[in-house]
Amino acid sequence: MHIDIQWVPFPPRLEILSKKTIVVIDVLRATSVIIEALFQGAIEVIPVTTVEEAARLAKTFPRGSTLLGGERGSRKIQGFDFGNSPSEYTPEKVRGKRLILTTTNGTRAFHSVAAAEDVLVASFLNGTAVAEGSLQLDRDILIFPSGDEGAFSLEDVVCGGMLIDLMARKSHAAIGLTDASSSARILYQRFEGSLLEAFRLSSHGKDLDALGLGEDLFYCARTDVTDLVPTFRNGVIRAS
Amino acid sequence: MHIDIQWVPFPPRLEILSKKTIVVIDVLRATSVIIEALFQGAIEVIPVTTVEEAARLAKTFPRGSTLLGGERGSRKIQGFDFGNSPSEYTPEKVRGKRLILTTTNGTRAFHSVAAAEDVLVASFLNGTAVAEGSLQLDRDILIFPSGDEGAFSLEDVVCGGMLIDLMARKSHAAIGLTDASSSARILYQRFEGSLLEAFRLSSHGKDLDALGLGEDLFYCARTDVTDLVPTFRNGVIRAS
Repeated sequence: MHIDIQWVPFPPRLEILSKKTIVVIDVLRATSVIIEALFQGAIEVIPVTTVEEAARLAKTFPRGSTLLGGERGSRKIQGFDFGNSPSEYTPEKVRGKRLILTTTNGTRAFHSVAAAEDVLVASFLNGTAVAEGSLQLDRDILIFPSGDEGAFSLEDVVCGGMLIDLMARKSHAAIGLTDASSSARILYQRFEGSLLEAFRLSSHGKDLDALGLGEDLFYCARTDVTDLVPTFRNGVIRAS
Repeated sequence: MHIDIQWVPFPPRLEILSKKTIVVIDVLRATSVIIEALFQGAIEVIPVTTVEEAARLAKTFPRGSTLLGGERGSRKIQGFDFGNSPSEYTPEKVRGKRLILTTTNGTRAFHSVAAAEDVLVASFLNGTAVAEGSLQLDRDILIFPSGDEGAFSLEDVVCGGMLIDLMARKSHAAIGLTDASSSARILYQRFEGSLLEAFRLSSHGKDLDALGLGEDLFYCARTDVTDLVPTFRNGVIRAS
């Protein structure tokens, strides 16, 4: 089994999507929010790329069944129920509800890999569960960090490196690493003792801190809060 | 001053090329060969993308003035004077000569950045000199690893990380690092004590070892052998 990681979030070739398990990561904050919302009882999350699409789609569902969440410029969108802070997604608010989410990088990443059969959703919150779930699918794996407006995002690659480190240590079969996946593992090992240090070095982490959203960094740096391994299929993310 | 590094070798936008100092790296082995050949007395190196172009161009120069070097599949090209091992480029053979070079990744990288005003040529052999030379130009810097057939190449990013580490420590002005350049610096710090370890983890290093070219790894892992800072301008690389 081979594990690769794509450092820059350009859409993978169809040939790769059709053969590999894809793991999407947007630690700050889309996949952390998705995992938290499902963990707190949301029934499904639909990632969409524009604010207009989110509003239009919400109207097609029964009143009261669907919530709107996400951000532009890291801030809550006017008229939406939630911003993009995982701590907002409490059980009282999300249990039994559908969430439509639009964010700058994470939701775009899901659309880049929509043609793949198996797309798993990862963050630090469910790292061990995703590592084990990916190995069980027994196919080559491509980890897909969402990045930061098309550029490389440190915290996503560190999270990918954690998954790679866990898979390499847990697999019974031999694991082949590429230069990219070996390097991500080394980056993770550098920050293993303090994920917050990685967040504070990253440009996105610094931006969130400057916007007064530093609490989100603590929230997103928690590891193995849940065993959920959400999957993205036919445009919808569900706990599986 | 900002330092960025491009982890995957797709051609930079013209806007970036026109504003920044570009540093091209292909540790295994094109830029190591270029630096070695100039250090041993070659007058200039012309990187071209195809074997046919190399042969055609050689015929336009006076007989005896020009040598052909390079590789395909890491091996010497039939009819060429040299392969792509730096140790072949001895003073007896190269002094006073022009070298036309075609390799799989390195020469393609030069053509990707040909529109830039200042393109410097780096490897471990001249790291400190390139770090100091780049700072003197006093513009933002983009480090451009040649990669491995379009993919990310560990040894090139480690070398880029060494330049970033040197620049950050040597600069009198504040240096801004991106997520990408911070990460490259961390990768370098991991292998600082043993660059050969990085080569042996890298897919390209393993390939060279398997082809019996392991000696080249020792040759390319030497640091600060020369103060030369070759520049690429109008299609030609010269010691400057």
